[in-house]
Amino acid sequence: MKTLSSLEALIEALRCLPGVGPKSAQRMAYHLLQHDRAGASRLGASLEQAVANIQHCEKCNNFSEAQLCELCSSTRRDTSVLCVVEMPGDVAMMEQAQAYRGLYFVLLGRLSPLDGIGPKEINLDRLVKRAADGLTKEVILATNFTVEGEATAHYLAEMLTARGLKVTRIARGLPVGGELEHVDSGTLAQSMIERRSV
Amino acid sequence: MKTLSSLEALIEALRCLPGVGPKSAQRMAYHLLQHDRAGASRLGASLEQAVANIQHCEKCNNFSEAQLCELCSSTRRDTSVLCVVEMPGDVAMMEQAQAYRGLYFVLLGRLSPLDGIGPKEINLDRLVKRAADGLTKEVILATNFTVEGEATAHYLAEMLTARGLKVTRIARGLPVGGELEHVDSGTLAQSMIERRSV
Repeated sequence: MKTLSSLEALIEALRCLPGVGPKSAQRMAYHLLQHDRAGASRLGASLEQAVANIQHCEKCNNFSEAQLCELCSSTRRDTSVLCVVEMPGDVAMMEQAQAYRGLYFVLLGRLSPLDGIGPKEINLDRLVKRAADGLTKEVILATNFTVEGEATAHYLAEMLTARGLKVTRIARGLPVGGELEHVDSGTLAQSMIERRSV
Repeated sequence: MKTLSSLEALIEALRCLPGVGPKSAQRMAYHLLQHDRAGASRLGASLEQAVANIQHCEKCNNFSEAQLCELCSSTRRDTSVLCVVEMPGDVAMMEQAQAYRGLYFVLLGRLSPLDGIGPKEINLDRLVKRAADGLTKEVILATNFTVEGEATAHYLAEMLTARGLKVTRIARGLPVGGELEHVDSGTLAQSMIERRSV
């Protein structure tokens, strides 16, 4: 096999980015070399630094450079609520929504029996232990509203209520600004079933 | 100002990629850290290597790691035709089309009087000197069919024919597989005006 030139290697390497195919990778490589070499260098260094420095918080599994992430080590968070999400990116989304001041637990996965992912594979024991710290009063389940996310929430709800914890699930319904005309019928049906008194 | 964490720095750095806004950058960073750390390392190294190694070919301006690019130093290219394009990416596209076996000259720009870019700014003298090497019989103008690309082609045609060279322009018309129903009227009008006998 011919060794790749730096340009070919760059185009090939860019394809690790989600949603980037051969055409976009080529366009990106040419763009960077022609218009933003400084940005390319900065991106190169950032990638290597991030891979080297970022690990998982040992308490909540979120990405962190220290043993404990910023949220877990903060004294300004409400330690009586614990929000369970599937992925580190979900913590970021939740924080950006600015509607929650408690702590998190990141599952780093979801139950998916068809793929052989059961309670053991995603370490649900660790969550149970974490929730039994004596401080946690309420566990908010914020897994996705996909089949797997729902199954995970259902399983967790049973497991945690059995241990005397208050368990809640984030609301499902129309998005803010959503119009009945444009929403799918599954969401509309659920928002009717889960209607609340005003 | 607070110093950025490795994760924040990575998200910020990813925004140098064309078409990547804050949301995509965040998604990409989380994806890489979670699912493809090896790919991220490889991309980091490729970026730094490409920026360090890739310069412009001193004969045709295309990207190259050596003083002369692979095309200019090849003995298997037809030295009697010279294809003029705007950008290095255009050479790659042309090579992928596999319909040309001659040499290239990359303008690294286009005439754009409104932006103060005249013949001097894009070094048209160098092209004239390159085309006057005694070997070149035909210059094919393959600048874009934009207003600036067309103006550049027009200017180059006058300049090069005045020096006794044969100058041609790549064809404009319906794309391969194109249907009259879906093509814009400007293209349709041009393909009518520039019709050829069969």
